[in-house]
Amino acid sequence: MPRNILVVGAGKSTSHLLDYFIDKAEERDLHITIGDLNPELVPQEFRSHPRCSVITLDIFIEDQRVIAVQNADIVVSMLPAHLHINIAKDCLNFKKHLVTASYVSDALQELDGEVRQKGLVFMNEIGLDPGIDHMSAMHVIDGIREKGGKMLLFESFTGGLVAPESDTNLWNYKFTWNPRNVVLAGQGGAAKFYQEGTYKYIPYHKLFRRTEFMEIEGYGTFEAYANRDSLKYREAYGLKDALTLYRGTMRRIGFSKAWNMFVQLGMTDDSYKVENSENMTYREFTNLFLPYSPTDSVELKLRHYLKIDQDDIMWNKLEELNLFDKDKKIGLKNASPAQMLQVILEDSWTLDEDDKDMIVMYHKFGYELNGKKEQIDSNMVVIGENRRHTAMAKTVGLPVAIATLLILDKVITTPGVQIPISKEVYKPILKELEQHGVIFNEYKVPYLGYNPDSVAG
Amino acid sequence: MPRNILVVGAGKSTSHLLDYFIDKAEERDLHITIGDLNPELVPQEFRSHPRCSVITLDIFIEDQRVIAVQNADIVVSMLPAHLHINIAKDCLNFKKHLVTASYVSDALQELDGEVRQKGLVFMNEIGLDPGIDHMSAMHVIDGIREKGGKMLLFESFTGGLVAPESDTNLWNYKFTWNPRNVVLAGQGGAAKFYQEGTYKYIPYHKLFRRTEFMEIEGYGTFEAYANRDSLKYREAYGLKDALTLYRGTMRRIGFSKAWNMFVQLGMTDDSYKVENSENMTYREFTNLFLPYSPTDSVELKLRHYLKIDQDDIMWNKLEELNLFDKDKKIGLKNASPAQMLQVILEDSWTLDEDDKDMIVMYHKFGYELNGKKEQIDSNMVVIGENRRHTAMAKTVGLPVAIATLLILDKVITTPGVQIPISKEVYKPILKELEQHGVIFNEYKVPYLGYNPDSVAG
Repeated sequence: MPRNILVVGAGKSTSHLLDYFIDKAEERDLHITIGDLNPELVPQEFRSHPRCSVITLDIFIEDQRVIAVQNADIVVSMLPAHLHINIAKDCLNFKKHLVTASYVSDALQELDGEVRQKGLVFMNEIGLDPGIDHMSAMHVIDGIREKGGKMLLFESFTGGLVAPESDTNLWNYKFTWNPRNVVLAGQGGAAKFYQEGTYKYIPYHKLFRRTEFMEIEGYGTFEAYANRDSLKYREAYGLKDALTLYRGTMRRIGFSKAWNMFVQLGMTDDSYKVENSENMTYREFTNLFLPYSPTDSVELKLRHYLKIDQDDIMWNKLEELNLFDKDKKIGLKNASPAQMLQVILEDSWTLDEDDKDMIVMYHKFGYELNGKKEQIDSNMVVIGENRRHTAMAKTVGLPVAIATLLILDKVITTPGVQIPISKEVYKPILKELEQHGVIFNEYKVPYLGYNPDSVAG
Repeated sequence: MPRNILVVGAGKSTSHLLDYFIDKAEERDLHITIGDLNPELVPQEFRSHPRCSVITLDIFIEDQRVIAVQNADIVVSMLPAHLHINIAKDCLNFKKHLVTASYVSDALQELDGEVRQKGLVFMNEIGLDPGIDHMSAMHVIDGIREKGGKMLLFESFTGGLVAPESDTNLWNYKFTWNPRNVVLAGQGGAAKFYQEGTYKYIPYHKLFRRTEFMEIEGYGTFEAYANRDSLKYREAYGLKDALTLYRGTMRRIGFSKAWNMFVQLGMTDDSYKVENSENMTYREFTNLFLPYSPTDSVELKLRHYLKIDQDDIMWNKLEELNLFDKDKKIGLKNASPAQMLQVILEDSWTLDEDDKDMIVMYHKFGYELNGKKEQIDSNMVVIGENRRHTAMAKTVGLPVAIATLLILDKVITTPGVQIPISKEVYKPILKELEQHGVIFNEYKVPYLGYNPDSVAG
């Protein structure tokens, strides 16, 4: 009997994941069951494949869910994070392993004791970020520790961007993942991090003006703004004594300063609905956030409000998005400013069929070894193939798929609700990722501590 | 038998309220029962007065509450708004009138049907703001309507400030009311208003840079920033067809621009706790929000971050608050930035014993009458006596006290859960307030519509 993998949720992020399983199905004796609310949307190649069955699966219908889980040897849940818990409980009941790319929720963490008791592996946060970031970081950190080094600094940055050959707009950006997450990025509280032994806090309205710069050889310069909580994995990574902890999101230079215009205007606010949003033009939307004038133009009011000089490229970035257009309409009822901004951005930033995306990741590891302070920088770049086979889907889906087979094959066996930070997990996965072109380059660089010279004013 | 008034809650805001009742007690045959959780804190003059009894009243102990309400002819609740509801239900059960200075909660509004049925008056929002603002505005609006005028514009501003003779710091501000409300002012969502027929929204981080200016003869120039919801009383005031609706908070010129420094830094954030807040110095607190540097001073980093020139008075305002002090400590455990900032401000902005406060209110009424557009401006200034008898306590307490006697005397009789916007209510109260020096000056001015020239850049 082939080993049955149940994949719950077959959204666009699962293309590489399913390709991987199908590729190995014969050789590794696998059967893949794809359960989705809309099975008719699963591509024909999977539906007609002899080693693949596609079933209707509504996770809120217990019978459907339980039967699907019972028939599986391992379950991969690609649902949004808050929908995993019922699947997880079924996996526990029927003693099935579980793999997800999502953050570990409190509800899931509570199952840890029972999961261990039953010898099950519930592997989470094994996509790109979280996922590849954990594994590539722990690989270097464990290496430093094995030599007797003591960690002083850890900085980590990830970005989902557009590949250089498809980088055709002034923002050097297109949506390669969930646009709503991009519009709301950084909201919900101050960003917190730790630099040279002192805590630092950045409020949302300053977040996009406190970027750091970094170079990736062959790909030029990038910038990064701080994530909400840079201290999240302090204990998991064993970095309680490190003096600097900083995690961020990478963009092309100039993106954040331009994005800050939306923040300053209030266009990213998702907390209230705008009156008459549906019939509003892009220009009227822009004018919502500017002082009233019986005579002055929206253009001049905005230039004055945000102090944009006549020769500033920031202006062209706004024009490129048609923010002053008198005809284009939002067409969305009862929408928040953030939802309206998303409509405007999707109008300009949607990938073309042949556009390629790009994933970049950059880590810095500062440490002390034999009385000397040293530093290793490590980076990774992955370019997508097209709009369907993106680098994003690849770097999220491949680690999930690889981990799934490693658990099936009993290479990964330590039980519990976990994230991929142990050598047993990250070593074989990183190795196989390399064969798929997900490769980290490591450099020894002089240790500077946290370097304020790389911070934008 | 004297008529018994139960006053629940005897905080510092009740000095004028109680004085008013005591003054009239003989002549109007009143007995005042003061119920408080800490009766020993009620001043001796009340405790020993023959027409006054002071009782221990814990509103969460039903027996105590019910007996106190049963023995009263009318109840005045000066508790925080969220604590009124049980008292209100007792008043309904035992058929007692109720007076509060608080906003009408949804729970209270739900009682309206029963309150009407039993012929009771539950009068709310009858302090200063809300309170005197409602009454003075409706007085002018009703007058315009009676002449056949049609309202086009309503703007209304109130400020609790320090009197000119006690105005001794660079901020032209001291705390005359709850400091926490001042620190958190404007938070919780974008400010919304309506100008010349278009909605306008200001995010919190721009709120203090979008002020309007106004003059009060004899008192100089003031500024105002927008309240959260300027449209709140649109229907209650009958202003559905007005083109401009704007409500704001008044400060002395320059306060808002300086306050914006705290907002920009993130010091007013109340959503998270700062690590080690208790032992932090004022200087360390300031440095939390500035980029790390191994060498640069907190002073230079802040000047650069907020672009404060060498000769800018903004700088002196920060120094006056000892924000760079290396010795002064916050001394507050597990505190949010907003709570820490409050400690620093209270250190500088607490009223001295002889300091006098000042209440200012300013309304603009634009209307069309016989085909002509006209405008009335109306303003009020009240100066306090000292730290105990403030203009704030007077303008909050007097309308409550006056309304209470008018209800007892059956001058105000229309039943229901209400706010003071009907002529029956505001006319006698405004008249009596004038005898106490709470006087509105009205001016006819040219109608300009919403005037953008009065808006700061």
